[in-house]
Amino acid sequence: MGQAWVRNAWYVAGWAHELGSDAVIARTIIGEPLVLYRQDDGTPVVLQDRCCHRLAPLSMGRREGDNLRCMYHGFKFSPEGRCIEIPGQPKIPPKAVVRRYPAVESGSWLWVWMGDPALADPTQIAPTISLKDPAYRMKAGQLDYDANYILIDDNLLDLSHLSFAHENTLGRGMPQWAQERPRISRLERGLRVERWIQNRATPPYMQQKLGDTFDNFIAYDFLFPGLFLLRAYFYPAGTAQRVNLEAPNEPPLFQRCDDQAVTPVDARRSRYFYAAGARAQDIEWPQVEKMYGITETAFHEDKALIEAQQKMIDRDPEHPMVLATADAAPTQFRRMVQQWLDAEQPTPGAQRIA
Amino acid sequence: MGQAWVRNAWYVAGWAHELGSDAVIARTIIGEPLVLYRQDDGTPVVLQDRCCHRLAPLSMGRREGDNLRCMYHGFKFSPEGRCIEIPGQPKIPPKAVVRRYPAVESGSWLWVWMGDPALADPTQIAPTISLKDPAYRMKAGQLDYDANYILIDDNLLDLSHLSFAHENTLGRGMPQWAQERPRISRLERGLRVERWIQNRATPPYMQQKLGDTFDNFIAYDFLFPGLFLLRAYFYPAGTAQRVNLEAPNEPPLFQRCDDQAVTPVDARRSRYFYAAGARAQDIEWPQVEKMYGITETAFHEDKALIEAQQKMIDRDPEHPMVLATADAAPTQFRRMVQQWLDAEQPTPGAQRIA
Amino acid sequence: MGQAWVRNAWYVAGWAHELGSDAVIARTIIGEPLVLYRQDDGTPVVLQDRCCHRLAPLSMGRREGDNLRCMYHGFKFSPEGRCIEIPGQPKIPPKAVVRRYPAVESGSWLWVWMGDPALADPTQIAPTISLKDPAYRMKAGQLDYDANYILIDDNLLDLSHLSFAHENTLGRGMPQWAQERPRISRLERGLRVERWIQNRATPPYMQQKLGDTFDNFIAYDFLFPGLFLLRAYFYPAGTAQRVNLEAPNEPPLFQRCDDQAVTPVDARRSRYFYAAGARAQDIEWPQVEKMYGITETAFHEDKALIEAQQKMIDRDPEHPMVLATADAAPTQFRRMVQQWLDAEQPTPGAQRIA
Repeated sequence: MGQAWVRNAWYVAGWAHELGSDAVIARTIIGEPLVLYRQDDGTPVVLQDRCCHRLAPLSMGRREGDNLRCMYHGFKFSPEGRCIEIPGQPKIPPKAVVRRYPAVESGSWLWVWMGDPALADPTQIAPTISLKDPAYRMKAGQLDYDANYILIDDNLLDLSHLSFAHENTLGRGMPQWAQERPRISRLERGLRVERWIQNRATPPYMQQKLGDTFDNFIAYDFLFPGLFLLRAYFYPAGTAQRVNLEAPNEPPLFQRCDDQAVTPVDARRSRYFYAAGARAQDIEWPQVEKMYGITETAFHEDKALIEAQQKMIDRDPEHPMVLATADAAPTQFRRMVQQWLDAEQPTPGAQRIA
Repeated sequence: MGQAWVRNAWYVAGWAHELGSDAVIARTIIGEPLVLYRQDDGTPVVLQDRCCHRLAPLSMGRREGDNLRCMYHGFKFSPEGRCIEIPGQPKIPPKAVVRRYPAVESGSWLWVWMGDPALADPTQIAPTISLKDPAYRMKAGQLDYDANYILIDDNLLDLSHLSFAHENTLGRGMPQWAQERPRISRLERGLRVERWIQNRATPPYMQQKLGDTFDNFIAYDFLFPGLFLLRAYFYPAGTAQRVNLEAPNEPPLFQRCDDQAVTPVDARRSRYFYAAGARAQDIEWPQVEKMYGITETAFHEDKALIEAQQKMIDRDPEHPMVLATADAAPTQFRRMVQQWLDAEQPTPGAQRIA
Repeated sequence: MGQAWVRNAWYVAGWAHELGSDAVIARTIIGEPLVLYRQDDGTPVVLQDRCCHRLAPLSMGRREGDNLRCMYHGFKFSPEGRCIEIPGQPKIPPKAVVRRYPAVESGSWLWVWMGDPALADPTQIAPTISLKDPAYRMKAGQLDYDANYILIDDNLLDLSHLSFAHENTLGRGMPQWAQERPRISRLERGLRVERWIQNRATPPYMQQKLGDTFDNFIAYDFLFPGLFLLRAYFYPAGTAQRVNLEAPNEPPLFQRCDDQAVTPVDARRSRYFYAAGARAQDIEWPQVEKMYGITETAFHEDKALIEAQQKMIDRDPEHPMVLATADAAPTQFRRMVQQWLDAEQPTPGAQRIA
C-alpha cells in the first residue's frame, strides 16, 4: 500500500496496568514487533520482539531481574537490548543486539518512541488524566480495529458524523453536530477543535445543577498519531450567546472528560484506548458507568462503519473521496502528517501516509 | 489473475423476494459493490455501494422515500445516484455522484445491467418462470461457490458428469449421460443443448401416466453469464425412435422445469440461484419437494468438486486441460465469452475470461 | 519467497497404516498435490493429484482394482498415470497422462521420490524401525507445523535448545545440552551428531540396572530432507571418561530409539512424523507411553516456538540471524542443502532453500 510511518513520535503502547511486574507482553506498533516488560524497579522496557539469534519472539521469553532471556536457545538481553549471555559460549559477538525503544509511563498509559532515540523527549508527551487521580472518575477500555489509524483519526476530527452514525447514542437529538461547523486551530503536533452546542436538553441527574437546558462548550486537542483529549464544559443556557460564541473564561458547572488514543498496529489494524468520565465533584460512579456505556456503544458503531469503509478502500485503493466542508480538520491533519512524514524521509513525497 | 468481465449483459442480482420494501442490501457482482433498494412504488434501484464522500458502504444506510442516505455523515442520494443533500452545506459539488446500474424485476429475479446504461434493453432478458405462476410448481434455493463462474458454466454445459459426479443422485443408473453426446446449436447469447435419453425407468408416481419406462427429451438454453433454462419432456417409450431422435413436436405427458442462474461475485466467488419443479398439471407439492431435494444434493456434489478444481487451478494457473469430445459445448461457450469480452475491450485478446 | 526444492530425494509421505487397501488419500509434498492409493497387491501408488482433464483432484476419485477413476467426468488412470478410459470416447489422446512418482513402503513409512524417476533408488532409503518389529517397543504420532521444514531441521540439528525450550520436559535438569558442544561429522546425505552427557540422574524404573547416575551417549544421523534417527545408549557412570569421550564400543544397558521425519508440505507448512521407544528387552509399555508423552509435550513446545519464529521471519524475511557456536550443525546442513539444490538447478545459486 506504500504505507509509511512518522517515527519520531510517542505512541501509546498500552495501559500501565496491563504490564504486571513479571509480565512479558508482545505488541505491534507501526508494523514493528515489540516486547514490553518491567525492570525490578518498575521502569518499563521496550525492545524489538525478535531475538537476534534465530529470530524467535522475545515475548515468549522470561524476565530475569532487569534482563530478558529468550527461551529458545537461552540468549539473555539487558534493558538496553545488548546480549549479555550466550549459553556455552564465552565470547558474545558485538552484533548480538536487539533494538531498544525509549519507553515512559505517563498518565495511565505506556508510551513508546518509535524513532531516533536521541530525539525522544518525554516532556513532549501530552498530559492525560491518570485513572488513579482522585480529582476524576474515569472508566477505561479498548477496542481493536481492522482499519488504518488514519480512518479513525478522520472520524474523530469530523464529529459531524455524530448526528448520523450515532443518532441513537452520542448524537441523539443533536442535528447541530452535522449542521454547524466547529472552529479549528493549529497546534504544534495537531489541531484544536472547538464548538458551542446551545440549548441541549439536560440529562435528569444534572437538572438540579443545570436546569432543563444548557449550553455546551466542547473542545478537544487532536495530536499525532491519534490522541483525542476532549473536555466538554457545561454552562447555563444563554452562556454561549453572552460570550459571543467565544471560548468561555468562567468555571463550568460540570465537566466531562474523554482521553483517547489511536495506535497504528500496522497498515490495516489499529488499537483504540479510551477513558471517559468527569470531575469527581460532578459525578457519581453509576453515572460514569452509564456515560461510558453509551460511549462504548457508539465506538462499536464507528468500528462497524470504519472497518466497512476500509474494506471498500481496499477494493479500489485509488478511488477518490469527494470531500465536504465538514472535512476541514481531517484534511488539514492528513496534510500535517504528510509533512512530518516527508520531513523524516530522504525523498519527500515518495511515501504515503495510508 | 488477469480476470476481465463482459459488462454489457444482464446479471441476476438476487430473488425479488429478498428485497423487501424497506430493505437495503449489499451485493457484489463482477467484483463491484452494489447496493439494492426499492423506491416507494417498488421499482428496484441499484447503485454503487460506496458513498462518494468517505467511501463507506451505502448498504449501511437508510432508505428515505425514493432516496438513500449514507449513515456515516448523512449524504443523501437519489435513485439516479446524484447526491441531493450534504448536511450543513448548501452547495453540492457536481462530482458528488455514485454510479447507477439499470435494474429490472423479471420472473422472480432481480436483474442488473453492469455495462453501458445506454445499451441496457430489458427485452433482452430471457423469460423465466415466476415462482408465483399458477401454471407451475417450483421450489427455489441458492448456493455460494468459492469458484470462478466459468467453472460452474463448464459443469452445466457438459452433463456427462451426471454419470459420475451424480451417480447416486441425478445420474443414478444413467450411463447414457457420459456415453452419448448431445446436439449443440448456437444461440445469440449462448448455446442450446439437446438430447434424448431412451428407456429410462419411470419413478413410481409417474408410472400410471408413463408405464414402466419412458423416453426423455432434455433441452436447455445456456445463456451468458450462466443462465441454465432446462425443460425435460417425458414421452412414452419408443417416441425417440419414432421421431428419429429429432426434437419432438408433440405435447409431453410430463414436463420438468429447471431455471438456474450463475452470477459471478468476483474472480473466485459465484452465487448460484435455482428453481426446480414441473407444470402444475403434472405434479403435487410432495413430489416437487423430493425432486428439489435430490437436485440440491447434486448441487452440493458439484460444489465440492468445483471448489476443489478451483483450488487445483489456483495452485498452478497455467496447467493445461486435456479436453475430450464431451467438452464441445463448454469449449464453444468459452470461445463466445472471449469474443464478447474482446468486443468490449480496447485491446482485444489482452484480457482473459477467467 | 524464492523457495526451491531439492527434488531427487525420498520424502516420507505418511505412515503405512494411514493408507488402507481401498483408501484414496491426498498429500502435498514440496507444494505438489499427490494422490496415494494401493494396487490390489498392496503396492503403494503415488500420482499427481490433478486429473489431466478438468484438473479436479483424483483424491476425490475411486480405486478400481489397480486403477484410479476421476469421479468428475469418469477418466480412468493406470498406476503408471496413463489415462486408460474416457467414457463415450474410443480414442484417448496421448497427452492424457498424470505424473507418476516412485513410491515405496519401508519401515512403517511410505516414501515417495519427488525427482527424476530414473534416479529413484529404494536402497538409498535409510533403515528405520518398523512399529511391528518385535525387537522394539515404539509409539508413533505426527504433528502439522505452519513453518518451513528448514526451521524444524535447524531445531533438530542444534539440541542446545533442550536446556531452555524444554527445561520442563526433555531438558529438565540438564544444562549440558546448552553448555557443551557435540561432535559433528559429515554423511553422504546429512550429518552425524554425537555427544556424551555424563552423570545423569537415573529415572526410577532404570535404577536397578543403572544405579543412581549413568553416562549417556547420544548419537543421531540427520538426513535430508529431515530424517532424525537417534539412538541414546545408557552406560554405567564413568564409562564416558573411561573411553575418553569417544564413541563407545561396548553393549549398552539400555537403548532409547527415536525415528523422526520432517516432510515439507510447502514453503510454510510441514508435517512431522515420529516414533519413540526402546528395545523390547529394556522397556515395558507403560514406560514407553510415559517417554512418548514427555516427548510429544516437548514437540508442542518446539511447534509454538518455531511457528512464532516463522511469523517473525515472514514479517521481515531479510532480517539476518546472529549465529552462535551451537549453530555449527544447522549451518553446515543448510550449506549442504544449498549445494544439492544448486546441483539440480540450471542456474546454481539462483534459488534459495527457504
